[in-house]
Amino acid sequence: VTGAATPKTGPERIEVAYHLSGVRNRAEAQARARDICLEQTVEFPEDLITSSKIKEHIVGRVLELERIARNRYRALIGYPVEVAGGELTQLINVLFGNISLKPGIRLVDFRLPENALRVCPGPRFGREGLRELLLVRGRPLLSTALKPMGLSARELARLAHQLALGGIDLIKDDHGLADQPFSPFEERVKRCNEAVREANRVTGFRTIYLPNVTAPADAIERRIGIAREAGAGGLLMAPGIVGLDAMRRISADDSVALPVLSHPAFQGSFTAHPDHGLSHGALYGMLNRLAGADAAIFPNHGGRFSFSPEECRGLVNGTEVDMPGIKSIFPVPAGGMSLERVPDLVAFYGRDAILLIGGDLHRHGPDLAESCRAFRRLVEKGSSK
Amino acid sequence: VTGAATPKTGPERIEVAYHLSGVRNRAEAQARARDICLEQTVEFPEDLITSSKIKEHIVGRVLELERIARNRYRALIGYPVEVAGGELTQLINVLFGNISLKPGIRLVDFRLPENALRVCPGPRFGREGLRELLLVRGRPLLSTALKPMGLSARELARLAHQLALGGIDLIKDDHGLADQPFSPFEERVKRCNEAVREANRVTGFRTIYLPNVTAPADAIERRIGIAREAGAGGLLMAPGIVGLDAMRRISADDSVALPVLSHPAFQGSFTAHPDHGLSHGALYGMLNRLAGADAAIFPNHGGRFSFSPEECRGLVNGTEVDMPGIKSIFPVPAGGMSLERVPDLVAFYGRDAILLIGGDLHRHGPDLAESCRAFRRLVEKGSSK
Repeated sequence: VTGAATPKTGPERIEVAYHLSGVRNRAEAQARARDICLEQTVEFPEDLITSSKIKEHIVGRVLELERIARNRYRALIGYPVEVAGGELTQLINVLFGNISLKPGIRLVDFRLPENALRVCPGPRFGREGLRELLLVRGRPLLSTALKPMGLSARELARLAHQLALGGIDLIKDDHGLADQPFSPFEERVKRCNEAVREANRVTGFRTIYLPNVTAPADAIERRIGIAREAGAGGLLMAPGIVGLDAMRRISADDSVALPVLSHPAFQGSFTAHPDHGLSHGALYGMLNRLAGADAAIFPNHGGRFSFSPEECRGLVNGTEVDMPGIKSIFPVPAGGMSLERVPDLVAFYGRDAILLIGGDLHRHGPDLAESCRAFRRLVEKGSSK
Repeated sequence: VTGAATPKTGPERIEVAYHLSGVRNRAEAQARARDICLEQTVEFPEDLITSSKIKEHIVGRVLELERIARNRYRALIGYPVEVAGGELTQLINVLFGNISLKPGIRLVDFRLPENALRVCPGPRFGREGLRELLLVRGRPLLSTALKPMGLSARELARLAHQLALGGIDLIKDDHGLADQPFSPFEERVKRCNEAVREANRVTGFRTIYLPNVTAPADAIERRIGIAREAGAGGLLMAPGIVGLDAMRRISADDSVALPVLSHPAFQGSFTAHPDHGLSHGALYGMLNRLAGADAAIFPNHGGRFSFSPEECRGLVNGTEVDMPGIKSIFPVPAGGMSLERVPDLVAFYGRDAILLIGGDLHRHGPDLAESCRAFRRLVEKGSSK
């Protein structure tokens, strides 16, 4: 079954594949790969390490090194699992901490040993769990955002009601809605959730409202408390802003137990340059999964942003590639999508996606609920092929 | 006085300067600047915004637009202060959230209105406060890291003792030391702090030990409690991993009240490409200050990393540029520095810096304390000129 947790197996070491660019020859590739082994562990000159125990059991190892293109090598490096100390924060540091400050290194993939992380159960719901929760089978899920910023809580709730009447599955806060004076968090969450609940009573649908809990470190818990008390069906978080581990903490918290939708704000620099950073699949897919997101929003190709179709495919792969014990999650293509593009979206992403259309729903006449129904019909039509 | 808080004044709006690259002509520059105004606020098609209130009071405004080089423009954009809602997390989102996902945009500078952020007092100590705490005047401060990873807590404490005997002002954990089995956090912090205290009793110096509290979101508080109980004199944090606001929270907490040293791990992608991301001064300088760091570690030019002298100068500028109500902080050039380079370092950074030498201190003979004394003599000699 797609998205089900797979049996726990894995490599012996934390295996990380990097692409090295601007490499003149194999000797240089070897030296740079060796440098990564040291930089990401002992951060100490190799000739000054006197302990053979440290050389053997702490420093990373070059497991594979191959030329993949002109001036470009792929290095597979194995780090001892102890180096990550069982924590996502230190794992991130081992994967790409200091070397983020060096040129020409891109992390393209990684694999973890069984139980490498003490407290990373991964997504609580994942694809299957979210489908069960929302009772949606055989088609992509529908999503939209409450916007524009500047509307009052009452106005946003009116929108939420229309959107839920029209059959959107997940209605999220726009990620820029925080606790601003024009729409204070508590009032907005109460009103919007109530509006969605009322619409569900009419339609029989199971639409959920996901407030944005990207918030100051000392306010996140309180906002989640408000969201839960209001009955919100999920949460929106931008891990680039609050930290991946802050999202992991929320997702893993049994007293919260809500689906978490991840937003890519402030993360774009990691994937902006093909010779640097992290691959789309590793960051928006795999790290989001380790950090407990059930779905990952990203800018689809051909919208207002710059991801290519190939990068989007890589991202989708990261949401579902085998990670022992970690569920698959939904990719959520967004960013200037329109009703006209729904057939393309369904063709490209298949059924296992959440399609997010924001502003464009407001373009198709005064009846927002009717535009949502049109969105749903287009998705159902595309999925029945 | 350098580093003292300056009187509170500031612009009316949040003013952000972006460089736009790959721009063919002025009309395109205008369109792209206008796009930023919308993307970072309402994230909604302009023609669909019916409310004149939102158009006037929420959407950003292009305040200046000038051609600064071939195909390159500088756009100064003003966002209403309300949009940030008084919170650092949402300010970061407004500055560079969604547009991090677009190509050819680099944030180079920003200015905030008075009291734009409710809970951002900035660095607790800053340059002056740290000098008073450590009783160091007229010269750069000295720093080093406990490493290599893999040593036991007892071995690291032995190093800490030698380093403190030699007169290092700030001894920090290597940023990869978390809570691994070879050196558990609690044991390490107790032993290392005790070792530094003992050395201080001998020397009369005021050396401080700064344990690394880059940790899981639900462990940070407990580790800081352990650090405080052990008597640690400061804290090390990597905001790229835990989130800038997690550092802000710790720095602003009166029950913690310790100097915070910021480490750049996992932040390099933001500054890696001159046409994208954030400037070195904005990220490592200004955002670190808003997030309460008292000093910012970064890889100096000419070491193992890739920053240029010009980028290092820009970074230093960000640590001291006028930010109303926010103290100046110390730049901490590091990353493969050596005793041989101390005269250059002092010439380049002047007295208002913390010089960090790691592995190279271990290269100069078996007496680590004596190597530290040599470091100190070189710094004092360079500063007396």
